[in-house]
Amino acid sequence: MPEHKPVLFTIFGATGDLAYRKLYPSLYRLYHKGDLQENFAVIGTARREWSDAHYREIVQEAIASLEPDAVEAKNFASHFYYQAHDVQDTSHYDSIKQLTDELDEKYQLAGNRLYYLAMSPNHFGTIVTNLKKSGMKDSQGFHRVIIEKPFGSDFQSASQLNNEIGEVFAENEIYRIDHYLGKEMIQNISAIRFANNIFESLWNNRYIDNVQINLAESLGVEDRGGYYDKSGALKDMVQNHILQILSLLVMEPPAAFSNTEIRAEKIKALNAVRIYTPEEVQKNFVRGQYAAGKFDGKTFAAYREEPNVAADSKTETFVAGKFTVDNFRWSGVPFYIRTGKRLTEKGTRINIVFKQVPLNLFKAEINADCKERQLPPNILTIYIQPTEGFNLTLNGKEIGQGFDTHPVKLDYRNSAETVENSPEAYERLILDALRGDATNFTHWDEVAQSWRIVDAIRQAWDQTEPDFPNYEAGTMGPKAAYDLVAKDGFQWIWEPDEWYRERDLL
Amino acid sequence: MPEHKPVLFTIFGATGDLAYRKLYPSLYRLYHKGDLQENFAVIGTARREWSDAHYREIVQEAIASLEPDAVEAKNFASHFYYQAHDVQDTSHYDSIKQLTDELDEKYQLAGNRLYYLAMSPNHFGTIVTNLKKSGMKDSQGFHRVIIEKPFGSDFQSASQLNNEIGEVFAENEIYRIDHYLGKEMIQNISAIRFANNIFESLWNNRYIDNVQINLAESLGVEDRGGYYDKSGALKDMVQNHILQILSLLVMEPPAAFSNTEIRAEKIKALNAVRIYTPEEVQKNFVRGQYAAGKFDGKTFAAYREEPNVAADSKTETFVAGKFTVDNFRWSGVPFYIRTGKRLTEKGTRINIVFKQVPLNLFKAEINADCKERQLPPNILTIYIQPTEGFNLTLNGKEIGQGFDTHPVKLDYRNSAETVENSPEAYERLILDALRGDATNFTHWDEVAQSWRIVDAIRQAWDQTEPDFPNYEAGTMGPKAAYDLVAKDGFQWIWEPDEWYRERDLL
Repeated sequence: MPEHKPVLFTIFGATGDLAYRKLYPSLYRLYHKGDLQENFAVIGTARREWSDAHYREIVQEAIASLEPDAVEAKNFASHFYYQAHDVQDTSHYDSIKQLTDELDEKYQLAGNRLYYLAMSPNHFGTIVTNLKKSGMKDSQGFHRVIIEKPFGSDFQSASQLNNEIGEVFAENEIYRIDHYLGKEMIQNISAIRFANNIFESLWNNRYIDNVQINLAESLGVEDRGGYYDKSGALKDMVQNHILQILSLLVMEPPAAFSNTEIRAEKIKALNAVRIYTPEEVQKNFVRGQYAAGKFDGKTFAAYREEPNVAADSKTETFVAGKFTVDNFRWSGVPFYIRTGKRLTEKGTRINIVFKQVPLNLFKAEINADCKERQLPPNILTIYIQPTEGFNLTLNGKEIGQGFDTHPVKLDYRNSAETVENSPEAYERLILDALRGDATNFTHWDEVAQSWRIVDAIRQAWDQTEPDFPNYEAGTMGPKAAYDLVAKDGFQWIWEPDEWYRERDLL
Repeated sequence: MPEHKPVLFTIFGATGDLAYRKLYPSLYRLYHKGDLQENFAVIGTARREWSDAHYREIVQEAIASLEPDAVEAKNFASHFYYQAHDVQDTSHYDSIKQLTDELDEKYQLAGNRLYYLAMSPNHFGTIVTNLKKSGMKDSQGFHRVIIEKPFGSDFQSASQLNNEIGEVFAENEIYRIDHYLGKEMIQNISAIRFANNIFESLWNNRYIDNVQINLAESLGVEDRGGYYDKSGALKDMVQNHILQILSLLVMEPPAAFSNTEIRAEKIKALNAVRIYTPEEVQKNFVRGQYAAGKFDGKTFAAYREEPNVAADSKTETFVAGKFTVDNFRWSGVPFYIRTGKRLTEKGTRINIVFKQVPLNLFKAEINADCKERQLPPNILTIYIQPTEGFNLTLNGKEIGQGFDTHPVKLDYRNSAETVENSPEAYERLILDALRGDATNFTHWDEVAQSWRIVDAIRQAWDQTEPDFPNYEAGTMGPKAAYDLVAKDGFQWIWEPDEWYRERDLL
């Protein structure tokens, strides 16, 4: 039986999309597996006036596909309580406090509290201040707060938010979610690096030529236009997910595989990422916004035609760039990143491109031109999503007489069934928070440094007018993104994911 | 159209099994692909009195499965001529010489001659001496001799044979066949090493823990008892195939991928293999002979019960051993070899076992015992036959919460169809000889050194009585073979080849 702890969840934003799509199903899975048992309860709060009965119906609906047995579902939902709540109204916190105490008694929760802030970040400060004022933090047991992204919109606003939260919660009580850190294959980055001597031995600038982090989306902005148009790809993807992935790839081996040691190494890694001058930003970063386009027989609207997007929007839906890591291990190795909406194919993939052999023994006689004599590089591709696995591209001998080489791809993928059945990112992260393991959450120092890196790019961009739109929906971004790597003598590694296509998972 | 050269083949041993099963089909394939065109002819010789017509029927029969079109098959076979021949009778060489001259004229063969010695090696000296005496070597054009194994039965007999042949043919005219060198995946060893920086960077004693060369046969001695009982596994497999594979794995990168450079490196490699003292042989080499056994529901007879095998035979049907390579690159890395008949599964496979990471970060808290904390090693497996491909065993993160690791196998195999359609070893090698490319043949210096290495083992063994039989048919050899690697702290890497099983290719 899994270890479990009694706990009261208080979810701010209980009527929202995230709670419905991610939190309730994740809590249910933990309950189903025994990580949550009878001694847990959930208080859902939001503006709307819902009854407990209605809230429980919603919860049951959210888990319907997971639990066909109505009695089981009802039993699970019986742990859920609703409290209407205006974040500004201090009396409401007293009502929550009262309910909290009742439930603690009823379910024997040992004073353990997990607050989940799944709502607009401009209320975070008010909420935590009032949690403290109302005495909710005074119980015995642990008090932890899980905070959804975005954590601020630049370094300054993030600092301010952090100070407000820091008045109430200590850093080790704060769990800043980046749901990418809950993904199976992101967690696998550390395993691949530190459990495999062949990779760890090569994981430096003597053997690695360049690294490519791709977070490609085939979808457009969908119904998130209102939020997205104020944010853009840089803040939405680079500041959090991409810089987190970068820090996992770049960090030195930790002395132990523990929360503290790993965080310390990640912070060191981010501190080594160069903060660009405006001139460096112009040279090393490219932004894009999608125009209308045709792909796979379908026609897609331009970003500026999407709902809730300004008709002259200057928001970027695409970013490509080169990060520079100034330390002994990585000096000279470009870290290319690329993310965008309405690209050819959905896929989060990391390519570790190794340096070529010093000499191509196999074509020396044939090609006089030095360029042609180069063999293709070895590439380790880590597939994060939608498929999960590894691919190692080698050079093998072309079958038949003679000694030409051809690419040989050694492949491993988690089966579609495994992917389906493996814990969802939110499920893992909630369980981590419950256990007090902050390894897969972002420390304030990481958030702060990521904002400093990204602010430099944003500020440089804000000084010039972008020439948008500049790429067609259904392509892999603007020409400038290709030029960015080409001028260093490299190219983007991106092949259609045949594994995915063959299984009709697109 | 492929490059081709006019040529006359003279096959000694034309009525034999090798000629029928390998040479005629290979010549046909070369003809079919245009590597041989109308200007070629074959003289078949042997003791029996056959007519040209009968010989051509036999040839047509040998290629029947390759060429369903009778007219085509007949046209191909029309290039074949038969000459009965007693190797001791000098007048017979004059007859062959006369036929040779006629065919050269008829087919415009430009004096190019390829002699194929596919018969008992004790006649090789007589044959080549008489080839010279009869003036057959005087024509313009090239004169090359292909010699089948075994090349001698120890260093002394091999030297003598080589001297006899050397009286007539220069070293660069002698093509000593080791058909393993014609295999796709053996040739791929060089590609995998020298076209892949990730492997070449790790290809030394700092990163490699041990190397394992397996040549496992599931068959017994079948109808070869007469020959095999005089030879045994050491001479039949280790002296040639295994030491050739070892030299390809061990050699330094050649300055160019040419015949001369590669041979020079292979010879250097073999010269670095330690020639054992009798004491070292007892410590490092294990021999075995199969007893009766049951496997997969079938019962197999003991080796001593096989046809044409002595009832008290002391011939080994199994060898396992550890070779030591005394040079800067390999000092301290054991090269384990294992070959035998009536083993569990047929398979020629090479395992490159890499050293473990310096520290297991992932289990440190769980296991106090230092031994348990070790992660499994990374292993590159090269599948030579019957399947062809590569497998890289890594450690990945176990799916789910926490950070346990589990083995992840990145796999690549040539499809069954590709294997089926790729050129057969003999086809490649005959074409190489035709083109004058001796890369995939064994130089005398290699043969000589291999015999010196093997003679030391044989002589040590001959001083003691083996305790035969010592392994059951259907197992992977005697216990001593397991002890051999276990005492160094290693184990044999051998898993059933699922790829093969799944496709019902067993």
